[in-house]
Amino acid sequence: MPQSDIAMLIETIALDMRSAPERGVLPTYIPPLADVDPDKFGIAVLEANGRMHLTGDANEPFSIQSISKVYALTMALETIGAPIWSRVRQEPSGNPFNSIMQLESERGIPRNPFINAGALVISDILLSHFGAADARRAFLAFVRSLVAKTSGVRYDESLARQEYETGFRNAALANDMRNFGNIQNLIPSVLRQYFHQCAITMTCRQLAESGRFLMMGGRVATETAQSVSARTTQTVLALMMLCGHYDGSGSFAVQVGLPGKSGVGGGILAIVPGIASIAVWSPGLNAQGNSLLGTAALTRLVHATGWSVFTPPRHEA
Amino acid sequence: MPQSDIAMLIETIALDMRSAPERGVLPTYIPPLADVDPDKFGIAVLEANGRMHLTGDANEPFSIQSISKVYALTMALETIGAPIWSRVRQEPSGNPFNSIMQLESERGIPRNPFINAGALVISDILLSHFGAADARRAFLAFVRSLVAKTSGVRYDESLARQEYETGFRNAALANDMRNFGNIQNLIPSVLRQYFHQCAITMTCRQLAESGRFLMMGGRVATETAQSVSARTTQTVLALMMLCGHYDGSGSFAVQVGLPGKSGVGGGILAIVPGIASIAVWSPGLNAQGNSLLGTAALTRLVHATGWSVFTPPRHEA
Amino acid sequence: MPQSDIAMLIETIALDMRSAPERGVLPTYIPPLADVDPDKFGIAVLEANGRMHLTGDANEPFSIQSISKVYALTMALETIGAPIWSRVRQEPSGNPFNSIMQLESERGIPRNPFINAGALVISDILLSHFGAADARRAFLAFVRSLVAKTSGVRYDESLARQEYETGFRNAALANDMRNFGNIQNLIPSVLRQYFHQCAITMTCRQLAESGRFLMMGGRVATETAQSVSARTTQTVLALMMLCGHYDGSGSFAVQVGLPGKSGVGGGILAIVPGIASIAVWSPGLNAQGNSLLGTAALTRLVHATGWSVFTPPRHEA
Amino acid sequence: MPQSDIAMLIETIALDMRSAPERGVLPTYIPPLADVDPDKFGIAVLEANGRMHLTGDANEPFSIQSISKVYALTMALETIGAPIWSRVRQEPSGNPFNSIMQLESERGIPRNPFINAGALVISDILLSHFGAADARRAFLAFVRSLVAKTSGVRYDESLARQEYETGFRNAALANDMRNFGNIQNLIPSVLRQYFHQCAITMTCRQLAESGRFLMMGGRVATETAQSVSARTTQTVLALMMLCGHYDGSGSFAVQVGLPGKSGVGGGILAIVPGIASIAVWSPGLNAQGNSLLGTAALTRLVHATGWSVFTPPRHEA
Repeated sequence: MPQSDIAMLIETIALDMRSAPERGVLPTYIPPLADVDPDKFGIAVLEANGRMHLTGDANEPFSIQSISKVYALTMALETIGAPIWSRVRQEPSGNPFNSIMQLESERGIPRNPFINAGALVISDILLSHFGAADARRAFLAFVRSLVAKTSGVRYDESLARQEYETGFRNAALANDMRNFGNIQNLIPSVLRQYFHQCAITMTCRQLAESGRFLMMGGRVATETAQSVSARTTQTVLALMMLCGHYDGSGSFAVQVGLPGKSGVGGGILAIVPGIASIAVWSPGLNAQGNSLLGTAALTRLVHATGWSVFTPPRHEA
Repeated sequence: MPQSDIAMLIETIALDMRSAPERGVLPTYIPPLADVDPDKFGIAVLEANGRMHLTGDANEPFSIQSISKVYALTMALETIGAPIWSRVRQEPSGNPFNSIMQLESERGIPRNPFINAGALVISDILLSHFGAADARRAFLAFVRSLVAKTSGVRYDESLARQEYETGFRNAALANDMRNFGNIQNLIPSVLRQYFHQCAITMTCRQLAESGRFLMMGGRVATETAQSVSARTTQTVLALMMLCGHYDGSGSFAVQVGLPGKSGVGGGILAIVPGIASIAVWSPGLNAQGNSLLGTAALTRLVHATGWSVFTPPRHEA
Repeated sequence: MPQSDIAMLIETIALDMRSAPERGVLPTYIPPLADVDPDKFGIAVLEANGRMHLTGDANEPFSIQSISKVYALTMALETIGAPIWSRVRQEPSGNPFNSIMQLESERGIPRNPFINAGALVISDILLSHFGAADARRAFLAFVRSLVAKTSGVRYDESLARQEYETGFRNAALANDMRNFGNIQNLIPSVLRQYFHQCAITMTCRQLAESGRFLMMGGRVATETAQSVSARTTQTVLALMMLCGHYDGSGSFAVQVGLPGKSGVGGGILAIVPGIASIAVWSPGLNAQGNSLLGTAALTRLVHATGWSVFTPPRHEA
Repeated sequence: MPQSDIAMLIETIALDMRSAPERGVLPTYIPPLADVDPDKFGIAVLEANGRMHLTGDANEPFSIQSISKVYALTMALETIGAPIWSRVRQEPSGNPFNSIMQLESERGIPRNPFINAGALVISDILLSHFGAADARRAFLAFVRSLVAKTSGVRYDESLARQEYETGFRNAALANDMRNFGNIQNLIPSVLRQYFHQCAITMTCRQLAESGRFLMMGGRVATETAQSVSARTTQTVLALMMLCGHYDGSGSFAVQVGLPGKSGVGGGILAIVPGIASIAVWSPGLNAQGNSLLGTAALTRLVHATGWSVFTPPRHEA
């Protein structure tokens, strides 16, 4: 698809979204996220050839929240590798993102790295690998290495602290897994690492850039970043496809047909292997906790471009 | 990839599989399936250009069992369309294929059309649409319309009857959904329809042919078959990717990276959109009830060809 | 307590209940039970010395429904004995009376004989012991042997048939247990036996008489009835106390403090060991499916008499 | 029953227990409890007339653990009263004592005050009522007020600390309830209060004395103790009967037929209303976490005395 078409297409989508009657609801349980302007909307599309297309609030930083789980899983796979699968599984959970029920029946082994319990295990793994003193820094450094200009890519310390102080369900999950021996560091350390990861802020542009290695099978273009293995990108993309939207993953796959990861801050990162890395942001959420207009925008974009992985490539048709 | 390479590749894979030390276990709860020769192994790869590659026992009919759920869902979508989603959802279940627990907490609405409960709802929909007298015939006719030579594509009546007589869990599921008003026909009719669908026999060659419309975005080449809508194929492929291997769907996505659907008879149908339709058959099952060597063979095939939907296409690299 | 006091007491209670503003709701899922006059109210108190006190509609037959599970368990214990505990447990379920979830996680062994699944196992045991041709007759004969005048103690065949035709959840439970090998007779036979047991009609007077053996440690006064072992009565009373009111058993124990068994027809049988056998009837149900005014009446009666098993006997005070 | 008979009876029982081939298993997850001599065995029977019968190690202090939940519930009922039932229910849980699953589906409201989650709520209530500085002291003072000689009735601080440091499941429960707003004090305070309550040490003699108010409908004989309301004792006894032995409560009711409360330290307190307060101690546990020989001894004792609440009183026979 000619690049001019993509630019025009996302403009049209953004225009339509601006007047959408339903914008979803802001998450009330995290006060700073509840205060975000619900009219914010941005799209960034990075093509494989390096062209970046932006529209709306694509240069405004927002809290990526659970999208950070993509980077954390990548780091864990690149440092520890396959042994992580003895501590977290690779299957959809069939339960809400913060469910604690399954942990009990499955003896403290979370279903996948994208539900909260699984992400806490990944944070615990990063803490053990990098050390309590350095894990937070190492994580931020990795994320920064994925973007061209790191300005604004930082921890929102105030948000991290607030989430830490009110994150009782996550504390329950961590304690429960510790009970089964599946958390090895001190629980406050694990929670602080986890909530910092979630509290990273980025723009749509930076988010789309950060997905470049996933689009390209692991190869990255920045000078600072090391390449990621093809094996890791395959695994991360497969899990994004199966578990990236919590209990709405199936519906997202049917509508959009791309591996994607959402965050409760209203962002979604979606990858078209070999073709594009897409970031959308709209703060209002649907019933499953995923960006309502972000999903709608991706549905429109994929419908127009034929980018779904389930669509035969145009040149084959 | 040159076609000669594919032919050679599947020969090599088949050769390796022949000497695999672990072949999985046959399902004991369906006597006729327990009697199948565990050394059977076949692969059929149909390319978009129409070339068919076969190896091993690819021309021997076997019981496709749950792979039939792909055809049933397709028929339901093409006849009834979107309203089916008020009776069955689109999400992974996080539970075994025949679980009854979730039905209770979710008021009789199954998680997806590929677990048993959901497939029973689809059978009920087909019964209502085609009538009790004709639904079975219509289903078989649809499947036959998808293959070039229909010889051997038939109901194994003896197997259907045996499964009907011993399928107490499926009877429990149907009764439970009837209790919630989500089964509308007589339960024995629904069960007979369902068990007949499962008892269809096909060869790997026929199975691969039958997946052509999924590979091609709905377009089919046979004279008899009507085209299927692009919307339906997208939906079916997305659900195959997310739910096609029961509680091993995540692991299959990570390893193989293709939408696929397994059956307890040891078959797997996997689709490479725009590129290939693949059928494998090896009767021994892994712990999740999916063909052990079939999965291994697909993993090998995809690794060599780069056909995973999560891999950047070669020409983009 | 002087007998005149009891007569006066139940008159007062009945009077108050007649003007109770809240009478509970009739069960809508069993049409004949939904048509019962909600103003019906009766109490029968049989003292250990043989005196019977009646008030209100205590001579009018009603459907005892789940109270029949008391007789069925007694028969199973007297005929088969302890081996029944390999097929049904003795613990509260913590789930609604007709829950199917627990069966799956506990491999088809119901929690106790008073939830539906457990009662179906007991019916299956009676069928195996007495034979399909005679089990229904044997059950009715046993119940009749417990009362002085059997007039009106009969199966409501129309109700039994209606429950059979619409009892999909019970059919689901039976099929599910059959799947685990814990139902041995044909499922329609088991369901017919079960629904007939539930469809027995009795008056409050007869119900109170039928509880005499439970009050007296197994000894019965009628010429026709055989004594029941003390062991059996202990067991039945203990399970009535722990599981006799479904998910409201704890609340009933706290308020009333007696072993009791409720039925969805609005009846409750409560036993004061060595002192009284009490039957109440009021068709409206509370949220747990137990008679709302029946429970209120028993609470009043026990409060006035000190009959709770948790209250120190008067003569000890 | 003549008092000499009781003395002789418990001697005989203790003698038999001494040579019991199976003694159960010590709890491994609490190190100090795992080190207790498994041959310890004691019985204390306090009759309504004040006579105390002792045998074996009845004067040796042990950790009462969950038996403390009886005192905590009593205190909460006497201070706060009925409002506690908006924060904890009165029903058997149907799940293990430390299950976290039910909390999620029931929105943070525990099933009863004797499972861990419910007991944590009670500790939270005591903390709010007495203040963080005084709650621990107030609890110990209440327990001491129930016994004649308080020597040895104390907190095992070392054990309380160890349980606090390793009690991750209880921390998970507390955090989970805090998430639902059902814990109001700081979680470390709640856990410390809870683990101190559990770490009280008493002898069988003192334990039997402490149950006197439950035996006597609330009236107590010591100079220091205030009477407890009859309403409270009824409630506590009913909940002991229904939930006092975790997932073995039904089996205990069938075998013993008395309201009782067990602790993982191997103690059991059982009450015969108006007749006796009984304490047994044997450290080995059965599969449900209740004292194996303690249960056996109570079964023997009740069988010989006819003390089950389900047995008609002798003078009525």
